[in-house]
Amino acid sequence: MAPVLVTGFEPFGGHPSNPSSAVAQAVARREANGLEVVSVELPVDGSAAPARLRALLDDLRPAAVLMLGLAEGRPQPSLERVAVNLLDYPIPDNSGVSRRGEPVVDGAPPAYFSSLPLDAVLEAWRRENLPGYLSDTAGTYLCNQVFYTARHHLSATGRAPLPAGFLHLPCDESLALARPRPYVPLESQVRSVAAALDAITRRLEGA
Amino acid sequence: MAPVLVTGFEPFGGHPSNPSSAVAQAVARREANGLEVVSVELPVDGSAAPARLRALLDDLRPAAVLMLGLAEGRPQPSLERVAVNLLDYPIPDNSGVSRRGEPVVDGAPPAYFSSLPLDAVLEAWRRENLPGYLSDTAGTYLCNQVFYTARHHLSATGRAPLPAGFLHLPCDESLALARPRPYVPLESQVRSVAAALDAITRRLEGA
Amino acid sequence: MAPVLVTGFEPFGGHPSNPSSAVAQAVARREANGLEVVSVELPVDGSAAPARLRALLDDLRPAAVLMLGLAEGRPQPSLERVAVNLLDYPIPDNSGVSRRGEPVVDGAPPAYFSSLPLDAVLEAWRRENLPGYLSDTAGTYLCNQVFYTARHHLSATGRAPLPAGFLHLPCDESLALARPRPYVPLESQVRSVAAALDAITRRLEGA
Amino acid sequence: MAPVLVTGFEPFGGHPSNPSSAVAQAVARREANGLEVVSVELPVDGSAAPARLRALLDDLRPAAVLMLGLAEGRPQPSLERVAVNLLDYPIPDNSGVSRRGEPVVDGAPPAYFSSLPLDAVLEAWRRENLPGYLSDTAGTYLCNQVFYTARHHLSATGRAPLPAGFLHLPCDESLALARPRPYVPLESQVRSVAAALDAITRRLEGA
Repeated sequence: MAPVLVTGFEPFGGHPSNPSSAVAQAVARREANGLEVVSVELPVDGSAAPARLRALLDDLRPAAVLMLGLAEGRPQPSLERVAVNLLDYPIPDNSGVSRRGEPVVDGAPPAYFSSLPLDAVLEAWRRENLPGYLSDTAGTYLCNQVFYTARHHLSATGRAPLPAGFLHLPCDESLALARPRPYVPLESQVRSVAAALDAITRRLEGA
Repeated sequence: MAPVLVTGFEPFGGHPSNPSSAVAQAVARREANGLEVVSVELPVDGSAAPARLRALLDDLRPAAVLMLGLAEGRPQPSLERVAVNLLDYPIPDNSGVSRRGEPVVDGAPPAYFSSLPLDAVLEAWRRENLPGYLSDTAGTYLCNQVFYTARHHLSATGRAPLPAGFLHLPCDESLALARPRPYVPLESQVRSVAAALDAITRRLEGA
Repeated sequence: MAPVLVTGFEPFGGHPSNPSSAVAQAVARREANGLEVVSVELPVDGSAAPARLRALLDDLRPAAVLMLGLAEGRPQPSLERVAVNLLDYPIPDNSGVSRRGEPVVDGAPPAYFSSLPLDAVLEAWRRENLPGYLSDTAGTYLCNQVFYTARHHLSATGRAPLPAGFLHLPCDESLALARPRPYVPLESQVRSVAAALDAITRRLEGA
Repeated sequence: MAPVLVTGFEPFGGHPSNPSSAVAQAVARREANGLEVVSVELPVDGSAAPARLRALLDDLRPAAVLMLGLAEGRPQPSLERVAVNLLDYPIPDNSGVSRRGEPVVDGAPPAYFSSLPLDAVLEAWRRENLPGYLSDTAGTYLCNQVFYTARHHLSATGRAPLPAGFLHLPCDESLALARPRPYVPLESQVRSVAAALDAITRRLEGA
């Protein structure tokens, strides 16, 4: 049976850790409505990450894809609405590569909307007292890049309706210990992502 | 000879004024590289504003379009990169209408990039010591709506390459007098928009 | 044996609840290094709150005082360094009373520093992975008022060295569900305050 | 006749310039209600700056003192209400010296309020459409240190009522060109400080 793919990222930008990877691993220990959850840590590398993701989409043939990443400074988990065909790295990636105003995929559409059931996730969060919101931009760094890559690759391979989207996570307590900034405890982040997975896969069963 | 169209908005959200309209009027008193500048104040009305804008694009046949709007809380003028086919009003428009997760234009593409020469505008600002930056989201209110409407209508009528884009302005001094928030004096905002128009239309001549 | 006094506030400013009161009650169910913890909810009333607090200080004769309050928008629990002899209410109190540029206590000193062991609390938080920081201002509303009142009354009654100070708490999950803002789950706030009480009272024993 | 002393600071923290010094020099070219304005650039050095300031207060015998400093990130000019007897440098000073939780002056009072006519300055700003506000903390770096030093020295030398206070300035356009942050054009900052000086010295004449 097709699994659910959950991706996180390795550390970057001088941070000693990345909650997105820890959370992805934590939710992979549970099932989501009977589906296996497979977690993968992607490199913060603008060439390797998209290649790895495309291979995973083709090899695993997942039933749904939830990509996670860190958005330092955001106060709550935020579901991205839209992936844009644009790279404009604020800092170089972990391989030292910079991108300035380039497309993610040459000649591809300007944007893809998330194909996750956004309202169902928000509703699940509200039911469980887990704050979160919809975001209008996933930025122009690796997070947007893998989000765009997944939605474009699934469309290009005839799987456009498959639920796939991106969820930005705030700092966790270990990143927030360094200086005053918003954070959500890792344990609470895990609950938010587990609730999102439940909402996403419940919809799959109903289909 | 084709003019340059500059739009602003009427006041909304309880604000007594809207700098975007004052700035649009101020720059309309000058020429931009020999081109006439026509300014129009759009209503904050999700039905009337797009209709008015489409009519202007068809009647005026402008050589370039620069749309202006207020982004309360932003610290500097910000050029939008992308218009998204999505309405999700944070507050009702001035006619009391709300929109929640609807497209701007049914069945139209998910997004359009700005067709303004963004780097040329940034460069012009830097040359004149006018702070400003590129923004990744024009939001999901009227600003994004007219931006998307213009880019879509120009594409649909065979004028996709025509320079058209959106510039968000911060509060001016009169809005900032009410409470502590970032602002840029109106006079400086006028200089930023005039410099943008100069960069946009210089490019037209070179074409 | 003298107890530890922990105060919170009733709801104000349109909020349906106030985490400071819930946290105060939660920590009152535990001991702190063998000392009883007594929790009291203060009214958000600029006349009644100081009167109530002075009576508690005289009747309970506490060994230490930790006052709690809500600081909407702050990202983490923050220990206040200094109480200032100034009232300048940003909104009226719950009795509808406004104060503008008045002293807390006429003719009293301009300020009192916290007499809590601030570094010991920060150290305890760090040891338990609980983010928090020192704040340079408790504002000019009720929080600063009760903080100043307590420190001044203890000084005026010959108890200046008694550990007494103020801790601002961020929104909890129920307040943060309403809109995107930083929050810390109530359960984690309780752990932060319990750790603070432990650090404050451990010092008492060592004296 | 006694002059008005206006101080600014040299650059620090990696900034190429400091608007407080440029503004201090600009206002020194004008009179304030018939009084000469003397401007001095203080070093960002926790030993040299207070010594220099005390010498100026004793040698110049100014009729009023307005100290200026940069508060990166603040959206508008902000008048400080209170100077606190506390040093806790967020970064070392320009001589590489750090201070952590030390008093400005050993054994001196915990705080001094500004002796400037704060409401008169706010009123002058409002009249001239210049946004600005009262701040509750001057921080714990050099700005608070010179503010405290001046108020304490004037008190200690029998000149406590002399108008003396601190005004924090936001970034100017040249600092804001580097990245998106609030700023106020230098020319507008000069007008704000000139208006403040006018309000401060008008009061002197009326005395």
